[in-house]
Amino acid sequence: LSGLVQRKICVAIPVIESETETLSEKARHCLEIGANLIEFRFDYLENIDKLDLIIDKVLPYKKNSIFTLRKKEEGGQFRGTESDRVAMLMKLASFGPQFVDIEYSSITQNDELADFIDQNKVPVLISWHDFEKTPSSETLIGLINEMRIYSNYIKIVTTANTIDDSIRMLDLYTLVDSRINIVAFSMGELGVISRVLCTVIGESPFTYASLENATVAPGQLSVNQMTRIYSLFKRKIL
Amino acid sequence: LSGLVQRKICVAIPVIESETETLSEKARHCLEIGANLIEFRFDYLENIDKLDLIIDKVLPYKKNSIFTLRKKEEGGQFRGTESDRVAMLMKLASFGPQFVDIEYSSITQNDELADFIDQNKVPVLISWHDFEKTPSSETLIGLINEMRIYSNYIKIVTTANTIDDSIRMLDLYTLVDSRINIVAFSMGELGVISRVLCTVIGESPFTYASLENATVAPGQLSVNQMTRIYSLFKRKIL
Repeated sequence: LSGLVQRKICVAIPVIESETETLSEKARHCLEIGANLIEFRFDYLENIDKLDLIIDKVLPYKKNSIFTLRKKEEGGQFRGTESDRVAMLMKLASFGPQFVDIEYSSITQNDELADFIDQNKVPVLISWHDFEKTPSSETLIGLINEMRIYSNYIKIVTTANTIDDSIRMLDLYTLVDSRINIVAFSMGELGVISRVLCTVIGESPFTYASLENATVAPGQLSVNQMTRIYSLFKRKIL
Repeated sequence: LSGLVQRKICVAIPVIESETETLSEKARHCLEIGANLIEFRFDYLENIDKLDLIIDKVLPYKKNSIFTLRKKEEGGQFRGTESDRVAMLMKLASFGPQFVDIEYSSITQNDELADFIDQNKVPVLISWHDFEKTPSSETLIGLINEMRIYSNYIKIVTTANTIDDSIRMLDLYTLVDSRINIVAFSMGELGVISRVLCTVIGESPFTYASLENATVAPGQLSVNQMTRIYSLFKRKIL
């Protein structure tokens, strides 16, 4: 039966003003080649005033979308002030995507944002990144228990410096309360195994992949690579 | 049902004269911690005349063993002449291990060895290594079709420079005549996924792991790491 579970893939697309015209096409293409979710990275938009012009290209896909406005400290491109970013996150939330990705550090540091999310029942994916290492299981579980206050959907991305780091991330799925949906994996070449197996031996609702083979995130597979591997699983496990 | 399939792990142990006394203990330890097969690497023996002294430590495990005398060109430590090596391979075969590992290049270049193997019905794992790259699927399949003349057990180890290289190795299992038992995976950090999945989505009779975490072969997992991952699969797939 487990072979029948569809393993979902989320593809991140940077929202870039000069590519406004092809944005819809790119999103459709992602879904056609096997992605199930699209993460629109609005932090790539150089001028946030242009959001109104570009949002129409995105809205047809909103029910399969994560809207993200990543801040610099967590690997993003947003260059405005934090209050600009919070205002824009609330605006993005009002469009009704499947999830708004909000960094744990943002929601804990901004009561206005936390209240807005709470009062409007905004579906949030609470995210947390470590670009240097993978903390201990105890630290990660403690963190998840703090994060779950804000949402049942939690994203934890660490950096694998050893294979054990990746295995520890996969172990998390056995250790965390199964009512919490965690997307947990490691970046880096030694994290590849966690990116692939988080939906196979873990219960991650989806994994992330890139549109093209030339990866932005280290160790990230392309949609094609991920679907090829998942189709080999399907063939074997069914 | 697929969850009930036992995924086998082979651990390589270098046969070193100064460690003669602990060799049995080490082999037993390997089996205790989850390995199913032991590859005794006799090419680490500095003085081949000492074989008779050390073989007694190995023979209790022979039915779960691969005897290997790897030549330098394929990553081994053997320092004698090729005719010494061939003579010693034939001697090793006479002890009756589960497999003798013989490089494809050795068996094609040495008729005496090929005849000995054939006449004595020596169970052979024919091996082939590429320390630089992963050839195309066509090349690999062509190679396997040449190698199968000598045995139904074929080991193909390449080097993954990209994730696609690893996926191509996993694809091999779907492309090769299922009557041939192939052990096919890639070395390198980007090969980790193929080392783990060759027995899961591929039908590899076993995968290789090291005794300790400090790896000899690049990208090689330890027995502990491999069994941890396989136990997570079991939990999920059963």
